[in-house]
Amino acid sequence: MNDLEKMRHTLSHVLAAAVLELYPKAKFGIGPAIDDGFYYDIDFGKTKISDTDLPKIEKKMQGIIAKKLTMEKREASKAEALDWAKKHGQDYKIELIEELPEKEKITFYDLGDLFTDLCKGPHVKDLSEVGHFKLIRVAGAYWRGDEKRPMLTRIYGVAFDKEAELDDYLKRQEEAKARDHRKLGKELDLFCYSNLVGSGLPLFTPRGTILRDLLNDFTQSFRLKRGYKKVCIPHIANIELFKTSGHYEKFPEMFQFISQESGDHLAIKPVSCPHHSQIYASSPRSYKDLPIKYLETTMVYRDEKKGELGGLSRVRSITQDDSHVFCTEDQVGDIFGELIESAKELYKEIDMKLHLRLSFRDDGDGYIGTPEMWQKAESAIKDMAEKFKMDYFIGEGEAAMYGPKMDFMAVDALGREWQLATVQLDYALPNRFKLEYIDADGSKKTPIMIHCALIGSIERFMSIYLEHTAGWLPMWNAPENVRILTVNNQVSDYVKKITDILDDTCLDRPLPKNKIRYSVDDSADSLGKKIKRATGLKIPAVLIVGPKDASENTVSLRLRDKEEKVELSKLAKRLKEI
Amino acid sequence: MNDLEKMRHTLSHVLAAAVLELYPKAKFGIGPAIDDGFYYDIDFGKTKISDTDLPKIEKKMQGIIAKKLTMEKREASKAEALDWAKKHGQDYKIELIEELPEKEKITFYDLGDLFTDLCKGPHVKDLSEVGHFKLIRVAGAYWRGDEKRPMLTRIYGVAFDKEAELDDYLKRQEEAKARDHRKLGKELDLFCYSNLVGSGLPLFTPRGTILRDLLNDFTQSFRLKRGYKKVCIPHIANIELFKTSGHYEKFPEMFQFISQESGDHLAIKPVSCPHHSQIYASSPRSYKDLPIKYLETTMVYRDEKKGELGGLSRVRSITQDDSHVFCTEDQVGDIFGELIESAKELYKEIDMKLHLRLSFRDDGDGYIGTPEMWQKAESAIKDMAEKFKMDYFIGEGEAAMYGPKMDFMAVDALGREWQLATVQLDYALPNRFKLEYIDADGSKKTPIMIHCALIGSIERFMSIYLEHTAGWLPMWNAPENVRILTVNNQVSDYVKKITDILDDTCLDRPLPKNKIRYSVDDSADSLGKKIKRATGLKIPAVLIVGPKDASENTVSLRLRDKEEKVELSKLAKRLKEI
Repeated sequence: MNDLEKMRHTLSHVLAAAVLELYPKAKFGIGPAIDDGFYYDIDFGKTKISDTDLPKIEKKMQGIIAKKLTMEKREASKAEALDWAKKHGQDYKIELIEELPEKEKITFYDLGDLFTDLCKGPHVKDLSEVGHFKLIRVAGAYWRGDEKRPMLTRIYGVAFDKEAELDDYLKRQEEAKARDHRKLGKELDLFCYSNLVGSGLPLFTPRGTILRDLLNDFTQSFRLKRGYKKVCIPHIANIELFKTSGHYEKFPEMFQFISQESGDHLAIKPVSCPHHSQIYASSPRSYKDLPIKYLETTMVYRDEKKGELGGLSRVRSITQDDSHVFCTEDQVGDIFGELIESAKELYKEIDMKLHLRLSFRDDGDGYIGTPEMWQKAESAIKDMAEKFKMDYFIGEGEAAMYGPKMDFMAVDALGREWQLATVQLDYALPNRFKLEYIDADGSKKTPIMIHCALIGSIERFMSIYLEHTAGWLPMWNAPENVRILTVNNQVSDYVKKITDILDDTCLDRPLPKNKIRYSVDDSADSLGKKIKRATGLKIPAVLIVGPKDASENTVSLRLRDKEEKVELSKLAKRLKEI
Repeated sequence: MNDLEKMRHTLSHVLAAAVLELYPKAKFGIGPAIDDGFYYDIDFGKTKISDTDLPKIEKKMQGIIAKKLTMEKREASKAEALDWAKKHGQDYKIELIEELPEKEKITFYDLGDLFTDLCKGPHVKDLSEVGHFKLIRVAGAYWRGDEKRPMLTRIYGVAFDKEAELDDYLKRQEEAKARDHRKLGKELDLFCYSNLVGSGLPLFTPRGTILRDLLNDFTQSFRLKRGYKKVCIPHIANIELFKTSGHYEKFPEMFQFISQESGDHLAIKPVSCPHHSQIYASSPRSYKDLPIKYLETTMVYRDEKKGELGGLSRVRSITQDDSHVFCTEDQVGDIFGELIESAKELYKEIDMKLHLRLSFRDDGDGYIGTPEMWQKAESAIKDMAEKFKMDYFIGEGEAAMYGPKMDFMAVDALGREWQLATVQLDYALPNRFKLEYIDADGSKKTPIMIHCALIGSIERFMSIYLEHTAGWLPMWNAPENVRILTVNNQVSDYVKKITDILDDTCLDRPLPKNKIRYSVDDSADSLGKKIKRATGLKIPAVLIVGPKDASENTVSLRLRDKEEKVELSKLAKRLKEI
């Protein structure tokens, strides 16, 4: 346990002590240190505790800390420990003690005479070392995570060494809340849910669909220019396909059903690789045809737990930006190189830092393919990571049984790390489907398969990207990138001049020939109201047209909260710069 | 029965007489006239009959016809009829006679002394009037269509008044066979099937996917320019969605399943309108927002009978080019007008003639909505059909219960008629989902929904379109529209000059900014072999590059079997003209 963890764990004792002073009948579960802080699970009996009680408890904790008490360790036998717990009516502690081995000494920590806890430690020496903390929220938690046991009240706190760190953390939490993609999804009218359709099944509005399509064009563009070809498959297949591929066992969350007409046992695909293998298998292939590179953004379906569904972070209809390459052993390095370069270009464009983990095999057994194949592939992959100057590390033993892989971690504007892109080498699937090609010497060989998704899924990526940008989508993918506001109803001829320019203007980066998507707000509302509406939708470029503009051949360009005058002749150029 | 039908029906008697002479033990089922000809279902016992036996039977028929026998009608009681059938061992006729009412007179027709048949007639007077016929094929057919009854041999013939008509028909049949889209799909490498994936679930190769995508861009373009907005929905939903919409009852061929996680009863959508209604319902709507026009090309799934699946004509994964408009009563005419115009533009572009049926209500009961609503809508629709000078007729009583509709019939290059585009007004669905908008006077109103598909489904349309074009797809949607063939290996620099031109060239009609999709065949094969390969793929424009071209700045352009020299400076322009 490091110092920060010791500190956080000690704070959970302080929390319990404060609670005990305020609620003498409280019964305590467990109180560990966690990422960023600590919690304690407490049974308050019939008393309801909510976030509004936290300042009071926090104040009491500050009082205890001011006393600079020390954490005193002492040992007891199991019988003594049980006596103590029973005497204080600490039912949950009794249960924990009863599970401990008979003969071992049990350790207790006393916080002065305020609170004694069954605890292994360690802790900070005295309370002057607990740093800076804040209680942040109350939640329900079943005792021992079992929904058949009592629901306890979990009080969460965060704690850091320095006050500035705590402030920074709280500020970022606040920011993350303001950027919550579920909130932004509603405000920007991007997606919605319907009870009739069901949970985890988002519906994308016209604006959301524009964003989806542009993100898809974006992630596919890096591979299309490297020779990948789009294919198209249905969303269902006979179960035999997934039994052959192995997904039948690997994906219990696959939706399955029976045809009423034919009695066939079918499933909705949880992945697309088995279908793609069948397109490869539809023609005889020669080494001259390889690599064959299929690209398809298509929905897969998984029967996710309802409790885990939320916004677009986890859904049951998942649009993967999938690709599958069939290649020879010698081509593995180049394919991985192309995909590293693609990921690098993509994440640079959206301003996210990228780390790379190379997940390689260890000395263990059970890996498919010969050690020579692995060594050759891993060394080719490592060479490519170096060639493209990636910030990478090697995760030994983190490969899948059926091949080495690369996992890209992207860092968003709030410093959070997300695993989005993956590239996965696969020695197994081509064998399972008996895929073949004729080599130069006329012999039959099995191709190697390389799976890749650059953004993972459109839904999850959209959730992260919306929070990364705080909903201020850049010109190239904002569903509406320009809105024209009229100051009065005398400027319609002049507005026509402007829209003619917009109709002829395309953005060229990062997607080529990306038309301007604009609308005109010439309603009778006040300019203030119109600006508020455009700002609410976070439209990146707002053009305000007044009568003076018509005579001067200018227009006011408003970018978030800054405004500038632009000559009409320079408008197209200026919009391309944003 | 018209004269042609009488003639065809008489020929089925002649067929039976010929068969009886050749196979005295044959037992006869039924022998009606059908579209283009006739058939007879016959039990040949253990004798196997195939297409190779047809010339022999046909010759025998010609011999019978040359005798100019007449068809003699006579009547008999049921008992007499049964005696006759039993005497001749005609078991199937016995079964038919036994089902006739007791007291009615039964009619027989005698063809001289060659063949007597239980038959209602009518027939041509004598065999000099049977016109021109040909036996075309043999098929299996269960007695009375019941798979538990014996399988009979069905012999099909075609017959026409004039020899030229018969020849023309046979030529067209031959042509249709050569154009069979299943054959073309393989030759042009557009789609494939896999037993593991299952029947009715086509997989589209890279070439097929280019064609799909372009056909989709094409059908969507007519609506996008009229203000339709793309949306995106998942392929599954809770069954409640379809119970509310009424599709649960209307589509027994819907695939249904249960979530293992939540126990939810779900289904794969057989249509997309219920999902789209939920996007409409996700926000409050004002009359100012209407019409709201959603557009989405998405797969729907239907559990079609396996025996009916074939090629792309009927599949279980159906990609509909769907759109749904939510509008007021006053907007119905304009929306129908836009869609008539769209269909007209689309089918003109692909050179198919278009007829229009306006399916209106009759005086019957059960129609949803008031007679005034219907009258207003029907008269608006009719006005639009006239405005756009459509070749239309009114099908009274052919409306759906929930609204009038338009069915477009497209005629292909072989003169076959296909129902592809439909537009359907719907008073029911918005009510079922309680959809609303706030009208100008502040009252809540129910919008009207208008469903439309312009090509129906990509799969079925592709099957018809491939046969319509005989696989010679035009430049704009040929998956590979240009192929460069090198005469020798000395011309690679010059080929680079040509590909630079192609990279900079876009086709602009009917889709804008449609890039040239080319490849270079610079293999060591002979030019003849290269041409054969390009012709096999029916690539519309083939550029042949020889060493003389390099010095003369020209290239040979081969369009199917015609060749011309083109100056390099004029190449882009020339390609756009094709």
